[in-house]
Amino acid sequence: MPTATASPQHTLDSTDRSSPYVERKAASITQGIMSIEGLSLNLATVRQWGFREAVEACARHGLTGIAPWREQVVALGPKEASRIVKANGLRVTGYCRGGLFPAADAAGRQAAIDDNRRMIDEASTIEAEGIVVIGGGLPEGSRDLAGARKMFADGVAAVLPHARACKVPLALEPLHPMYAADRGCISTLSEMLDLCDLLGEGLGVAVDVYHLWWDPTLAQQIARAGRRIIAHHICDWLVPTKDILNDRGMMGDGVIDLRGIRALIEAAGYRGVQEVEIFSNDWWAKPGEEVLTTVIERFNRVCMPL
Amino acid sequence: MPTATASPQHTLDSTDRSSPYVERKAASITQGIMSIEGLSLNLATVRQWGFREAVEACARHGLTGIAPWREQVVALGPKEASRIVKANGLRVTGYCRGGLFPAADAAGRQAAIDDNRRMIDEASTIEAEGIVVIGGGLPEGSRDLAGARKMFADGVAAVLPHARACKVPLALEPLHPMYAADRGCISTLSEMLDLCDLLGEGLGVAVDVYHLWWDPTLAQQIARAGRRIIAHHICDWLVPTKDILNDRGMMGDGVIDLRGIRALIEAAGYRGVQEVEIFSNDWWAKPGEEVLTTVIERFNRVCMPL
Repeated sequence: MPTATASPQHTLDSTDRSSPYVERKAASITQGIMSIEGLSLNLATVRQWGFREAVEACARHGLTGIAPWREQVVALGPKEASRIVKANGLRVTGYCRGGLFPAADAAGRQAAIDDNRRMIDEASTIEAEGIVVIGGGLPEGSRDLAGARKMFADGVAAVLPHARACKVPLALEPLHPMYAADRGCISTLSEMLDLCDLLGEGLGVAVDVYHLWWDPTLAQQIARAGRRIIAHHICDWLVPTKDILNDRGMMGDGVIDLRGIRALIEAAGYRGVQEVEIFSNDWWAKPGEEVLTTVIERFNRVCMPL
Repeated sequence: MPTATASPQHTLDSTDRSSPYVERKAASITQGIMSIEGLSLNLATVRQWGFREAVEACARHGLTGIAPWREQVVALGPKEASRIVKANGLRVTGYCRGGLFPAADAAGRQAAIDDNRRMIDEASTIEAEGIVVIGGGLPEGSRDLAGARKMFADGVAAVLPHARACKVPLALEPLHPMYAADRGCISTLSEMLDLCDLLGEGLGVAVDVYHLWWDPTLAQQIARAGRRIIAHHICDWLVPTKDILNDRGMMGDGVIDLRGIRALIEAAGYRGVQEVEIFSNDWWAKPGEEVLTTVIERFNRVCMPL
């Protein structure tokens, strides 16, 4: 359980606690400790709502923050999006989603790098506490998974200086192996931590239970990650899973040991929000208000370590 | 590439090459070396055909062997099934599928153990070169994946003496992480090899490309497996994948580097057949003859190391 004696310092790189962008993060994490119910909503969970409607609902229900998607922010303009969030007293706990660096040719790879740099500028404007960065899939026609992974690493290295300059942490997110071909060529926390080891300051990892719950080395890799964990995403794995992309479950409706994984994450030093991210044809078909009240009820009932 | 100078000995445990059940396997592998086109068909691939029809078609097309499912063999009776296979000059390169040891209570676990022992007897009768053994899912209502893995290991240990006595190798098959909840709680080759290390003679592993192609440690674990590889299953990963269970692809239609993985497997010392196992609503809807001729064409065109 988080306590007031737990270190309120949350750094991306424990070897450099003086790094200026750490201050914003540290302040937000301190806020997280004060609210054990620290809950953030990834707005993809309630895509039946527009941006403003979703933000206002989250504020009305007392949530800590939101994690918007880029299309929403760009459509409004980052400044206006930020104004709406601030007017409702919320934080932007994450910004979805960057990365996706593999491409068939050099021009495509450069375009992805340029696009990620623009996204970092947007993240800075909306004061996002981090950008979620995923691997991307194989280039069209390719079967070279190792090559795609190399392109991902090269892309992260290319945008990292700009992310550091803008004080925007990059939360590297491994995706479930069933997405290795078309969305996330990096499947394990181990690989993302290897990249953090290699590239250093400014990088952290996002631990999404949906992507990682099956990993037999999960406990070991969460401990290894330590304070480099900068995001914790939750939902559940349904049995059966009817759709490979859009059948994530509400917390408590599936088989993931949410309490157990949260305990490991807290033991590693992370005290930040849990961000609910549910892509679900079933939940998208319900009223947003029903989704949000269910999220809050389940978060309080099945997501906290005992 | 396999050559006549490669060792024709294929043993389950390189520390005990005198083990009697190795002889059958060694003889079959020698045959595999003589026929570089060594192709076996898992009969689930052509479930539009009955057992006899499928076996006769495989023989007519010159395949090396078949891998039947238990329901088919038990329905005919193992002796009659074996007679049909032998009359057509085929081998039984694998028998599907055992394992599935996790259960909610001790009676359930014992029932699974007893059932696996009966399956070993059947495998002996049909002279199967191995039984494919998968993890099984979480017991009803459980979120304890580590506990399920322990039940799997205990189950394998419980049936292994009988498998050894019957000279039936157990091919431990990790399943894709998307099946961890309901079919295979063991997701990685690394875990299965750990169990082989622990329990020793009589165990090997099945390398199914569909389950393992995404694993960043695959090359390393195949090398580690060495001569403990006793089955190599092939199909392909489609983009997009429309169904989590029954949308496997024909070789060449997806993104798996089949040649590359086969090269790793041969470098590890395995020279046995490639077994085609395609669960596919699309292919099941076509005539069996079309499926089989496509399998043969693709096997020759995209599955052999260059």
